[in-house]
Amino acid sequence: MNGAQALIRTLVDGGVDVCFANPGTSEMHFVAALDAVPEMRGVLALFEGVVTGAADGYARMAGRPAATLLHLGPGLGNGLANLHNARRAATPMVNVVGDHATYHKRYDAPLESDIDAVAGSVSGWVRRSTSTADVGADAAAAIAAARRPPGQVATLILPADVSWSPGGEPGRPVAPEPPAPVADEVVRAVAEALRSGEPSVLLVGGAATREQALLAAGRIAEGTGARLLCETFPARLERGAGLPPVERLGYLAEQATAQLDGARHLVLAGARSPVSFFAYPDRPSDLVPEGCQVHVLAAAGDDVVAALEQLADLVAGDARPERQPVRRPDLPTGDLTVQSLADAVGALLPEGAIVADEANTSGLLLPVSTAGAPRHDWLTLTGGAIGQGMPLAAGAAIACPDRPVVCLEADGSAMYTPSALWTQAREGLDVTTVVLSNRAYAILRLELQRVGAEAGGPRAADLLDLSRPDLDFVALASGMGVPASRVTTAEQFAKEFERALAEPGPHLIEAVVPPLV
Amino acid sequence: MNGAQALIRTLVDGGVDVCFANPGTSEMHFVAALDAVPEMRGVLALFEGVVTGAADGYARMAGRPAATLLHLGPGLGNGLANLHNARRAATPMVNVVGDHATYHKRYDAPLESDIDAVAGSVSGWVRRSTSTADVGADAAAAIAAARRPPGQVATLILPADVSWSPGGEPGRPVAPEPPAPVADEVVRAVAEALRSGEPSVLLVGGAATREQALLAAGRIAEGTGARLLCETFPARLERGAGLPPVERLGYLAEQATAQLDGARHLVLAGARSPVSFFAYPDRPSDLVPEGCQVHVLAAAGDDVVAALEQLADLVAGDARPERQPVRRPDLPTGDLTVQSLADAVGALLPEGAIVADEANTSGLLLPVSTAGAPRHDWLTLTGGAIGQGMPLAAGAAIACPDRPVVCLEADGSAMYTPSALWTQAREGLDVTTVVLSNRAYAILRLELQRVGAEAGGPRAADLLDLSRPDLDFVALASGMGVPASRVTTAEQFAKEFERALAEPGPHLIEAVVPPLV
Repeated sequence: MNGAQALIRTLVDGGVDVCFANPGTSEMHFVAALDAVPEMRGVLALFEGVVTGAADGYARMAGRPAATLLHLGPGLGNGLANLHNARRAATPMVNVVGDHATYHKRYDAPLESDIDAVAGSVSGWVRRSTSTADVGADAAAAIAAARRPPGQVATLILPADVSWSPGGEPGRPVAPEPPAPVADEVVRAVAEALRSGEPSVLLVGGAATREQALLAAGRIAEGTGARLLCETFPARLERGAGLPPVERLGYLAEQATAQLDGARHLVLAGARSPVSFFAYPDRPSDLVPEGCQVHVLAAAGDDVVAALEQLADLVAGDARPERQPVRRPDLPTGDLTVQSLADAVGALLPEGAIVADEANTSGLLLPVSTAGAPRHDWLTLTGGAIGQGMPLAAGAAIACPDRPVVCLEADGSAMYTPSALWTQAREGLDVTTVVLSNRAYAILRLELQRVGAEAGGPRAADLLDLSRPDLDFVALASGMGVPASRVTTAEQFAKEFERALAEPGPHLIEAVVPPLV
Repeated sequence: MNGAQALIRTLVDGGVDVCFANPGTSEMHFVAALDAVPEMRGVLALFEGVVTGAADGYARMAGRPAATLLHLGPGLGNGLANLHNARRAATPMVNVVGDHATYHKRYDAPLESDIDAVAGSVSGWVRRSTSTADVGADAAAAIAAARRPPGQVATLILPADVSWSPGGEPGRPVAPEPPAPVADEVVRAVAEALRSGEPSVLLVGGAATREQALLAAGRIAEGTGARLLCETFPARLERGAGLPPVERLGYLAEQATAQLDGARHLVLAGARSPVSFFAYPDRPSDLVPEGCQVHVLAAAGDDVVAALEQLADLVAGDARPERQPVRRPDLPTGDLTVQSLADAVGALLPEGAIVADEANTSGLLLPVSTAGAPRHDWLTLTGGAIGQGMPLAAGAAIACPDRPVVCLEADGSAMYTPSALWTQAREGLDVTTVVLSNRAYAILRLELQRVGAEAGGPRAADLLDLSRPDLDFVALASGMGVPASRVTTAEQFAKEFERALAEPGPHLIEAVVPPLV
């Protein structure tokens, strides 16, 4: 078999059987090899940001990596923003970047560029395959690297001749490393802090935002009075009725400061110590309150679930975690607003939904409105690189074909990777995309005020305005084969949202809402 | 003034008065400063690939750099593919990338990433501004670096606090370096080779694809019998009636090999020695024929125009360059095909048109059909990173508001940066986009055969197919405010093309053509 066949065979043997792809000439043997290894599902995207965002969404829900297939340095560049988000999500991913043949590189052909440097900026592991005989072993190492706790982007650079030459052989699967155990004394020290009776916050993140860890965290909160919070942008938060309610740390530093105010102990369980998303003149970057001691129960890569359970046994005895009751908002009526839209989503979100949330300012009220909806997963913009929502939804839908996927997408953000809709149509994915169309970079209007810029000018305002011309998302979606509607009232939204959820395949609803600012 | 104001003032003083922007929070003071320095024109794009592609198109036509404004590492990543093309085009560009405040970086906030590493992969010059007092001087240095012959991407990384703090002052303009003179003995040695009477090729590229250099090259060809060829992907080729006709070296190695066959001397005038675009099994990467001597008359950055004129004086005496007569194809009739579409464009291309060519396989016949059209400029895909055409057209139209811009765009390539259409609508640009809709990655079908892959399989074929669902470019364009039509016959195309050229503002024509392979 040739190198490409050995690579794909190794991936499949290692549990990586979906490849999101936007190939070019240097990847043609990989493409051809899909017929030789039919267990691999190739999913075509029209832009690399869709490839990498979908691979991220897939792995967040499947719990194992997908592969990507990107075309040299420019293809990697186009995929870089969502690789950045995947890096911040600690998503396992086998990122395959095709390159020129080994002997061709020195000619500096037009597509030649420094792939290694760019890949290094988003990858925890980078390797360049240099011989066909090794490509199987390289692929097995890539899978193991991708799965190394807490998960990371592993980039395998694949020269065309390594791919096309004969002499490949599948690599032997490498057993994944388990997460690192947390030392007993660490757990005991945290227990002691929580028993102090001083105001405490337990901040969960990373692998601790799923049911088992949240139940343990809920016991700890119940048993000690510690406040349970979740990192601002969890990769995958399990929430809704039956699970412990957990509030996310606010995106705006002011919100986070208020949430942490008065805490004397901050326990980090898979989460990092909170910092401001951006710097602002005369405001602190570090959000830990003065006089608050930070305790790291478990860092990324540590076995945070076991550590939380051990801690709960120490401090919470038989305490039972609070569980969120079913509590949905009433179906709203009247004009569509940020509030009524959030309430309608909360009223109608189906059991088992996966929510890809890139609603930005228009979504600020969603967490509250959906807190008591039936159990669901919430996927967020982990790295702040917009253009993630619709690709993420596509990947999640491929991972979980039997679950409804709801993508809540800001209009500005939607325009970075719109062709995700085409992939959704092509694959018949059950995704309901709600575009929150406020016709502005509303978050930047807000930020323009917050950074203290003397921002009254019309030229600055014009650069944050998306209304000249208005984007018509119904036309855009239709152009990519996704049925779409536009709504301006809460009643219309509810009707279209229910219909979209009931019908198979992708749908888009352009929800026209006034901007928050 | 603050740093942002000093930066923009310096740019304007240095002749950089257009900024293509997709800003975020860390660039809010730059945005606000647009009101303080009204000479700077801010042009909003919805995606960074549009920003960088437009800045490329602008500079190719204006002959001076535009600025960009990108949001941290992910924004740079999204712009990377068209920065790659700009690098290959030797386009001068002042690429401004906002970053976190200097003191905020150590907190590794979600958007933190290694901007410097990524910027280095596409930039000839990278500097990180570290103090507000220096930002003006840094900007002046960036302009000088961008304009250093032959031109390059100069990236200035701008931390938010450097931007927002007071104490900025405009930098003093730095005089641009002239191109390096070519030594007399180099010119004499080339003259001797050309006088040998052996078969010779004069390959022009870089700065030698404009009128003055082409006239000198035409004299040399006429006076010596050398064959005049142009590099495969010139940044800006002046051509059409009245100028010396110059054939481009073929994209496919087989074509190029045939064009160079038998040559004993290959003179490079601003062009690089020809290499295969990709490697293929058992085919050479270096396209210089056996026994052919390569002579570098002028490399990138050298004064190729003066060198060609000097060489012409030595070898061509009073020879007059051949000039292309006006010769247009007849207006075709019947079904739209790659041939009839090319003929219709050749028949109707207006005087002074600027053509942004990303037609790929569907455009293979365009060079011949348009050779005798009235004088025009032809901009090509210099770096092979698709998604350049529509942004390039937008930038060219801003540089030359009085000239018609025609964008010939393949359907696959159009889906990388479709929101360029929105910027075209917003700015009211006179761009006629023709999407050559063959509903396939046709070039990859061709390449799948050419690389020798065992390519019969349906799964491979499916990954190169864009027809499931069909993309509706009329809907897509309408969704972004660009009037559009779909045509399937040559007569319809001619009618819509003429109408689009006659009406102000952007238009799109979806030209449904069968794929070449």
